[in-house]
Amino acid sequence: MSQTVSPASASYAALCAEVRRFHARQMQLLDSGEAEAWAATFTEDGLFAPPSLPEPVRGRAALAEGVRTAHAALVAEGEVRRHLLTTEVVEEPVAGDADGAVRVRSYVQVVATRKDEEPRLILMCVCEDVLVSEDGEWRVRERYVTRDDRP
Amino acid sequence: MSQTVSPASASYAALCAEVRRFHARQMQLLDSGEAEAWAATFTEDGLFAPPSLPEPVRGRAALAEGVRTAHAALVAEGEVRRHLLTTEVVEEPVAGDADGAVRVRSYVQVVATRKDEEPRLILMCVCEDVLVSEDGEWRVRERYVTRDDRP
Amino acid sequence: MSQTVSPASASYAALCAEVRRFHARQMQLLDSGEAEAWAATFTEDGLFAPPSLPEPVRGRAALAEGVRTAHAALVAEGEVRRHLLTTEVVEEPVAGDADGAVRVRSYVQVVATRKDEEPRLILMCVCEDVLVSEDGEWRVRERYVTRDDRP
Repeated sequence: MSQTVSPASASYAALCAEVRRFHARQMQLLDSGEAEAWAATFTEDGLFAPPSLPEPVRGRAALAEGVRTAHAALVAEGEVRRHLLTTEVVEEPVAGDADGAVRVRSYVQVVATRKDEEPRLILMCVCEDVLVSEDGEWRVRERYVTRDDRP
Repeated sequence: MSQTVSPASASYAALCAEVRRFHARQMQLLDSGEAEAWAATFTEDGLFAPPSLPEPVRGRAALAEGVRTAHAALVAEGEVRRHLLTTEVVEEPVAGDADGAVRVRSYVQVVATRKDEEPRLILMCVCEDVLVSEDGEWRVRERYVTRDDRP
Repeated sequence: MSQTVSPASASYAALCAEVRRFHARQMQLLDSGEAEAWAATFTEDGLFAPPSLPEPVRGRAALAEGVRTAHAALVAEGEVRRHLLTTEVVEEPVAGDADGAVRVRSYVQVVATRKDEEPRLILMCVCEDVLVSEDGEWRVRERYVTRDDRP
């Protein structure tokens, strides 16, 4: 293989490394119950359409409130949850697309563990994100999540 | 860390980003039952040695037929399957290797989910690929998959 | 998106590709029971604080001995284990940090499979690594692993 890397290839590799860090940090914040920091990974009016709610959640205040409530319930039950994001397809911005949005479709496993019990794979999800760059940081403008057990 | 990236490092990062996109797309096509598009991720005479068959499958027509049949059965049973590819070791082409083939050894979890049921991890596999570049696209020339439950 | 990649972005992408290869190889060596080769992925006096021991293991001889013993027991039981490392956050060295250490926090699933049985997700772990570069290779100087079932 030639050691010469085209600018397009170098650009895509850099994008993927950034998106991967973004997603990993975001999932770890969620699992740690850091509600405000997690909400800040969305745009100010970011939309999150989870499978568990009839209507999407919009805006950081509502996003943070959702995580705070959910995490408090988990702590009360003594359960730790992990969101494992894998098999992600990162689609570069379409040429001429003014907002430079990046689309990512990934698989997310949700694993729940209680004290002295084996971990359980409780959800298998598909996550479709529209990411935009703001102040040098990637943020979720829109996120659509579906569960395989609710076709 | 220095901000200077050697050409070899930049080349490897670009290769890994491409291979990762290739694999993620390929798994998502398989899980969506897009038989022809999935078969097109192999070379025309690509070989797939799955653990479930006594003989390898060779060529796009046979590959597509296999996925079509398997996916129809899953749809009839109301089961969704996901192939999660992780922990991949991407080996650069050996210098002097004329075909520039890339070897990748990865772990693949197969998760099956039925309506209103928890997902089940049904298979833990090791996937060994020989990838080649054709017309600017990565394709599988050979794929060998083993299952941990059949040693 | 511009095709111009900043040196910092290119450097981070190169680092992530190397770290990913390092981790994937290391997990595959562990799962294959290659005790000495696995131990050589740590620094000579590398520290591994696993959740299953009261004291950390230090140094390659002790690290290799631990894997040899554990792997022999698994072989005797007819069990294959896989360590799947995902959702990793790779933190670049802090400017001015003389040793150029890289910190990585990742999620590790441990999957166990016996002949003719379905795989079981037996452990969900968080792995915190301090990696250093020696002779052009990444090595673990310190590794701290926690299990979600032992809070």
